[in-house]
Amino acid sequence: MSGDADGTARRRGRPPRTESGDTRDRILVTAREEFSERGYEKTSVRGIAKAAGVDPALVHHYFGTKEQVFAAAIEVAFAPAMDAPEAIADGPLDGVGERLTRFIFGVWENPATRTPLLAILRSAVNNEAAAAVFRRLIAAQLLRRVAAQLNSPDAELRVELAAAQLVGCAMLRYVIKVEPLASADPEQLVARLAPVVQGHLTGP
Amino acid sequence: MSGDADGTARRRGRPPRTESGDTRDRILVTAREEFSERGYEKTSVRGIAKAAGVDPALVHHYFGTKEQVFAAAIEVAFAPAMDAPEAIADGPLDGVGERLTRFIFGVWENPATRTPLLAILRSAVNNEAAAAVFRRLIAAQLLRRVAAQLNSPDAELRVELAAAQLVGCAMLRYVIKVEPLASADPEQLVARLAPVVQGHLTGP
Repeated sequence: MSGDADGTARRRGRPPRTESGDTRDRILVTAREEFSERGYEKTSVRGIAKAAGVDPALVHHYFGTKEQVFAAAIEVAFAPAMDAPEAIADGPLDGVGERLTRFIFGVWENPATRTPLLAILRSAVNNEAAAAVFRRLIAAQLLRRVAAQLNSPDAELRVELAAAQLVGCAMLRYVIKVEPLASADPEQLVARLAPVVQGHLTGP
Repeated sequence: MSGDADGTARRRGRPPRTESGDTRDRILVTAREEFSERGYEKTSVRGIAKAAGVDPALVHHYFGTKEQVFAAAIEVAFAPAMDAPEAIADGPLDGVGERLTRFIFGVWENPATRTPLLAILRSAVNNEAAAAVFRRLIAAQLLRRVAAQLNSPDAELRVELAAAQLVGCAMLRYVIKVEPLASADPEQLVARLAPVVQGHLTGP
């Protein structure tokens, strides 16, 4: 560790500036793993700190409360997805349903994004603080940004009902694993769901 | 208590035959409350027995394992709803979407059925044994019975995608509480969702 190697005396758990970015990232990655494995309620700042090999005070220093650590961990997991709304809304409006549907299936079919998504869903279903984070990040940032492109007076409700179709499909397919939905070919599902999503977004 | 009043000596928690129906019902009601309040994982047969004032062995005697108690508690909570599939599928096929949508909203808007439904959803999202119960009861009994009326080769997938729209709406409205969906007028939602559900069930 550079902090030990250069022999600088420092407060326990407070690294020198040069490695603070690395430490912050390591805490975030660890937090994401802990929340994914244990869910929101069973994860503690102390546990994250222990798994990341840092002092709990450092976790608080960088992120604040457990709720704020959770929000930061979600934001990191979904940083690539956060650029999606513009890409989804870009292009011809009559293809926005298919673009949104394919994007959501892409996130769920990829194990790297499915795991944190499952963790968020499980946490949000069981804990009000986690639900609030979900509302703020996913709803406000993702859905609102898609809604902004629609130019409809009830754009937000439209996007939410479209999201409801896709969230419900994810619930039954990936979480509850109801057959035949759980084993259905993703392309078959996209073919069925894209027009529904399109109808919610731009239909009468 | 009749057992104490008539002074009959009996093994602890094992009631005389005449009151066994009452005791079984009391265990079931208590189990439903315990699962609703604590969720599947945090509920124990011992806890249910204690809250019902009976010996844990009696709970096992009547229902078997914790998973079987959970299944029985869900079945009781949804006994009225289990008659619904025929009623929903009855009548003109072009109104089945609205009947199913109104039925689901009826269940969710009524606090007496919303509470056990939330408990089942929370449990199923977090625990594989609870998810299996959900699959067997809700999926197999409710969805299959609607599908049986449709006379379509992919009727089961159709019903599941329709259910996905309604499950997702329930998730975002009642669990995550995303606005404006959470505060939207139920009639407005039925008007938007019934045609979508209809399309899944009987559309091209």
